[in-house]
Amino acid sequence: IFSKLPDTQASIFSIMSECAAKENAINLSQGFPDFDCDPKLISFVNQYMTAGNNQYAPMAGLLSLRETIAEKVNFLYQKPINPDLEITITAGGTQAIFTTIAAVIQTGDEVIIFEPAYDSYRPTIELFGGKVVAVKLKSPEFKIDWEEVKSLFSERTKLMIINNPNNPSGKCLTKEDVLKLEDLVEQSNCLILSDEVYEHLVFDGRKHLSLLSSTRLAHRTFVIASFGKLIHATGWKIGYVIAPTELMIEFRKVHQFLVFSVNTPIQYAINDYLKDRNVYLQLNDFFQKKRDFLLEGLSGSRLKAIVPEGTYFLLADYSDLSEEKELTFAKRITSEYKVATIPVSAFYKDSLDQQVVRLCFAKKQETLEKAIENLIRIK
Amino acid sequence: IFSKLPDTQASIFSIMSECAAKENAINLSQGFPDFDCDPKLISFVNQYMTAGNNQYAPMAGLLSLRETIAEKVNFLYQKPINPDLEITITAGGTQAIFTTIAAVIQTGDEVIIFEPAYDSYRPTIELFGGKVVAVKLKSPEFKIDWEEVKSLFSERTKLMIINNPNNPSGKCLTKEDVLKLEDLVEQSNCLILSDEVYEHLVFDGRKHLSLLSSTRLAHRTFVIASFGKLIHATGWKIGYVIAPTELMIEFRKVHQFLVFSVNTPIQYAINDYLKDRNVYLQLNDFFQKKRDFLLEGLSGSRLKAIVPEGTYFLLADYSDLSEEKELTFAKRITSEYKVATIPVSAFYKDSLDQQVVRLCFAKKQETLEKAIENLIRIK
Ligand SMILES: CSCCC(=O)C(=O)O
Ligand SMILES: CSCCC(=O)C(=O)O
Repeated sequence: IFSKLPDTQASIFSIMSECAAKENAINLSQGFPDFDCDPKLISFVNQYMTAGNNQYAPMAGLLSLRETIAEKVNFLYQKPINPDLEITITAGGTQAIFTTIAAVIQTGDEVIIFEPAYDSYRPTIELFGGKVVAVKLKSPEFKIDWEEVKSLFSERTKLMIINNPNNPSGKCLTKEDVLKLEDLVEQSNCLILSDEVYEHLVFDGRKHLSLLSSTRLAHRTFVIASFGKLIHATGWKIGYVIAPTELMIEFRKVHQFLVFSVNTPIQYAINDYLKDRNVYLQLNDFFQKKRDFLLEGLSGSRLKAIVPEGTYFLLADYSDLSEEKELTFAKRITSEYKVATIPVSAFYKDSLDQQVVRLCFAKKQETLEKAIENLIRIK
Repeated sequence: IFSKLPDTQASIFSIMSECAAKENAINLSQGFPDFDCDPKLISFVNQYMTAGNNQYAPMAGLLSLRETIAEKVNFLYQKPINPDLEITITAGGTQAIFTTIAAVIQTGDEVIIFEPAYDSYRPTIELFGGKVVAVKLKSPEFKIDWEEVKSLFSERTKLMIINNPNNPSGKCLTKEDVLKLEDLVEQSNCLILSDEVYEHLVFDGRKHLSLLSSTRLAHRTFVIASFGKLIHATGWKIGYVIAPTELMIEFRKVHQFLVFSVNTPIQYAINDYLKDRNVYLQLNDFFQKKRDFLLEGLSGSRLKAIVPEGTYFLLADYSDLSEEKELTFAKRITSEYKVATIPVSAFYKDSLDQQVVRLCFAKKQETLEKAIENLIRIK
């Protein structure tokens, strides 16, 4: 049988999570919390299920939940959103990304992405006949050279994908970056997919620069958000997309036939749960403590940590202690030191190897303690 | 902005469900039960959520659930399935259909579908550059003329979509149909998508003829199944696909980047729930009683019912009492008689109008009683 995606392998997240399980190692690879979501949220789900809210939700999602999202967005980013026309609830951030690309990319369209890049972008673009134009950012700065981006930008550039805060680098866009982006696309028809699934995880007093706040960009931008990251339940598979009406019409044409709608009782429950603003306002602090604890712990190890500005990932450079390739190192550390990580090379098409692995710190204190204990033993 | 799906409108299910709500009518349009799922199932979900099973499931789904599905399939269709390689859990039947088409259809490929057809097939095929070749079946027989199918079949036919039992006609494939299908594709490379989401709803002592039972077809077939229909929880959005390993590899390449995985605690709960075979063995009887009650009730009306062999839908021919188009009639009946139905023309590309509407009988006894009371008043 022919293959439409001949290069596609099992995702590195599946590979390393399976490796962690096999080696009985602490799993700091795939990005998910090992602590649980709020029992209050679970009891909301149970209430709505028991009350009989178990049939199809409206295609775009429950209006009440979309209204709550619109309030949150206006509160955080001073951007008024029409909940009826400009928000759609999705089966997670990944589905929202796929559907956006499906709705806009046609054969021959070029899409600019920045590497290291989340692993779904490229195959999804290619599935729709798009051509990936990758801008490679290098560890440890991951700085965007906007002159380089400009040189790759053309009339064929249909879409740019921004991931801010960035997984895996932990970098956030600066105001300068946003300005450069605004200038670059101003005269073009280029659309933007802004993957902001880690919007609530930015540290050291930073304020997340959502592209929703940019009056020069919002009219051409799909913003992707994730509830999984917000409520510590990545396995509930729920997120949303915000886009101006004209773009959302195209998004929904695909969404309607791709999945039609998303889990109903969970939408009700999240809506109730988000009425408490602390749910998202306290996340930065909550995760910054974990980041700082891991940073402090690693300072006693031979791994050089790169301080993340956002996300729940931290990169560690091991070049001082080994010349192994990242995947080899990651597998060995999983087996010998019982800590699973993600090789950052998996986020580059050409597997660029910089001797850096990614650690997820969305973990219980005791998990982080044990992981540190093991990691400081690496020689 | 350009549109990749210029012809796509809001789905008829959204339109008529909204119309029902606005008119405060009994909603027999969109296909979903108005009774609730088993409280036992809800308590399983609550248990698994409370026990902390809220993070990403494996990409292909929980292995335990896939093992349970494999047992069910072997029990019902005498077909051994490898749960690890040949089953993937999806966010509903619609996502499974979309992903199958995404995985196999390339620009210029032809896909044979039978109209009336579920409304997602055509736009999904077109989104991937495929060409729809429709075989039109007519009310009230909806009989397949296999000579006609043969005349449309060619080397370009990449895929055929079968929907058995058929929504909206309520017809089931006969053994003769399956034989004709086997003969037709035997010498070709044509794949088959067999949408069997109503497999557990066949009446009058019929046995569902799953294509999984066909040794001549199974190696080229994706079978789509739905838990929503099985557990009376369409709003939980969970289903699965079964395909031979070689085809499943291609399916998963897309699935992995389209949605990655499906709600974890719900997978655990359904797995426990399905251990009781009565869950699916009793469905035929349960729904046949409802069908028969509605048929009996309609016999006192001026609507001519077409007896469905399967699904939870029943077609009613109103040609004796009105010359209106189906959509006009359906909207008027919703408004004047407070019963919402689906115009069958929505399932034909050219909106073929046969003065037939579809009624969903997955409803409580009292709902059906009230609906009948209203429908017999139509003059
Ligand atoms: C969908 S599995 C990947 C989770 C994640 O976002 C990551 O680990 O980067
Ligand atoms: C996804 S909404 C449509 C439900 C359904 O299968 C139908 O009504 O035909």
